[in-house]
Amino acid sequence: MKKLPLSSEDRCIAQWTSALGHQPKSGIRHSLGHDCAVLSSFPRNLDLVLKTDAVVEGVHFTRSTPAPLIGRKALARGLSDLAAAGATPRAALITIGCPNPRSASRILQAYRGLSRLAKKFHLPIVGGETVRTRQLLLSISLLGTVPKKTSPSRSGAKPGDILFVTGKLGGSWPHHHLTFTPRLAEGQWLVRHKFPSAMLDLSDGLGADLPRLARASRIGFTIHPDQIPLSPRATPRHAFTQGEDYELLFSVPKKRLSALLLQWPFSTPLTPIGICLTPRQGYHTGGLPLRGYDHLR
Amino acid sequence: MKKLPLSSEDRCIAQWTSALGHQPKSGIRHSLGHDCAVLSSFPRNLDLVLKTDAVVEGVHFTRSTPAPLIGRKALARGLSDLAAAGATPRAALITIGCPNPRSASRILQAYRGLSRLAKKFHLPIVGGETVRTRQLLLSISLLGTVPKKTSPSRSGAKPGDILFVTGKLGGSWPHHHLTFTPRLAEGQWLVRHKFPSAMLDLSDGLGADLPRLARASRIGFTIHPDQIPLSPRATPRHAFTQGEDYELLFSVPKKRLSALLLQWPFSTPLTPIGICLTPRQGYHTGGLPLRGYDHLR
Repeated sequence: MKKLPLSSEDRCIAQWTSALGHQPKSGIRHSLGHDCAVLSSFPRNLDLVLKTDAVVEGVHFTRSTPAPLIGRKALARGLSDLAAAGATPRAALITIGCPNPRSASRILQAYRGLSRLAKKFHLPIVGGETVRTRQLLLSISLLGTVPKKTSPSRSGAKPGDILFVTGKLGGSWPHHHLTFTPRLAEGQWLVRHKFPSAMLDLSDGLGADLPRLARASRIGFTIHPDQIPLSPRATPRHAFTQGEDYELLFSVPKKRLSALLLQWPFSTPLTPIGICLTPRQGYHTGGLPLRGYDHLR
Repeated sequence: MKKLPLSSEDRCIAQWTSALGHQPKSGIRHSLGHDCAVLSSFPRNLDLVLKTDAVVEGVHFTRSTPAPLIGRKALARGLSDLAAAGATPRAALITIGCPNPRSASRILQAYRGLSRLAKKFHLPIVGGETVRTRQLLLSISLLGTVPKKTSPSRSGAKPGDILFVTGKLGGSWPHHHLTFTPRLAEGQWLVRHKFPSAMLDLSDGLGADLPRLARASRIGFTIHPDQIPLSPRATPRHAFTQGEDYELLFSVPKKRLSALLLQWPFSTPLTPIGICLTPRQGYHTGGLPLRGYDHLR
């Protein structure tokens, strides 16, 4: 048989997906190269966790960002959200927005960076999609699992709960936003031991994400600016307004406080930064602004 | 308590998601407004089906396309892929690429169109994501289910199998590509009755999608151009090269042919257009070009 012609789209996709190399296959019936990915169902004692996230040139990275770090970041952001849900990642889909045929090699590099992080978490890339866009864009959709009824929401914090963050905040640019490790192990551990009454990941800065937790939970809060754990050269204002820290922010009932501090098994810093109040008690930040990074501003 | 400030991003998202109105809630633990959507797991006799798909201004619609039809199309394209997998859609995530604050009302309209189609299929929108992009962009991720081990791949067609298409092909622009109905019921019926040896949906035209099926299945084929069911004013060449028909293309073992034709319960046309051959017998299209729409050309 003469070879059937490959479109340049098919050719690129074949090249990109081969950059993923050897992937986990357990529980996967159909994967790359089918209309849809098909997976075996998970046991009923698990809940399914779904998340989608995108990075765009000029917003989340620049033209000079090394492409492997773009791919890495695209995946790591979504994984950070799964961490906040206490979830284990199980499968990922990639959407590529490709500005022109010359971008193909940059995308290949991005796949390599993404693939390295996926392998670290034993995460198969099971499908994807390519579209022509004016800017380079990578969008990742994730499926994860979490023990039934354990995934914390943003809405469970109660007055009196202590507010914690993992890691150090601020100064994410120019490096940390490309190289951070999503706090998956920490999130899974916290949820397995039922510590968080509410949890989210810090993607837009304390000044934007803390109000989201407070609104959802209908609480007030006091933050102690001098207790915020800071990256080198960062200020509490950076921690509030800059975003892209990808650390966990969560509330813990006061009676679980000593258990949490005694049992925390990670080298990742764990810091109490404030306390939840009643709505009537208001919100207090020592003068730090309650606004963070705003994608539509 | 003074009201916590809402970023313009949070304000837009609240407005857009309210356009979704009353949504199905069964099996959904966390939905919009959380880091991740959390769903109850499905029974083990079902497989999970995952798909992501995007539409972009200037590629899949124009600046003058009515916004509700953009939202409708964004969702319908992904549903068409689920149809090819024989799947029932269970949950959707939406990613919005928003060029500027003025786009917000256009996106609101798009959500309304998308929501109408979602309601028709009892499909909850469980999460989303907003990013700043230069072009308006909607990306949809879908989770579906299909009875265990029944979802057809592209790779199961055998020499001697008959090639079928649903509906009529060609002439998708200027209207059909915005208003088509994904062949979910047809795909689910075909898979439940185990007719297709291979199946995919026609998104890039017979000239691109048929070679994909043939390559995956390692078959040759003969197509009878005068048997291709055509839309008004379309030619077989349109059917091969234009794309965006969103009909099903599938192969059926010859011994199941009469059962399929006798039992087909839909008013949707069902047409045999050719036959699968051995690779050595090659591929024959009566001169029609084996190329379709190419996103990277």
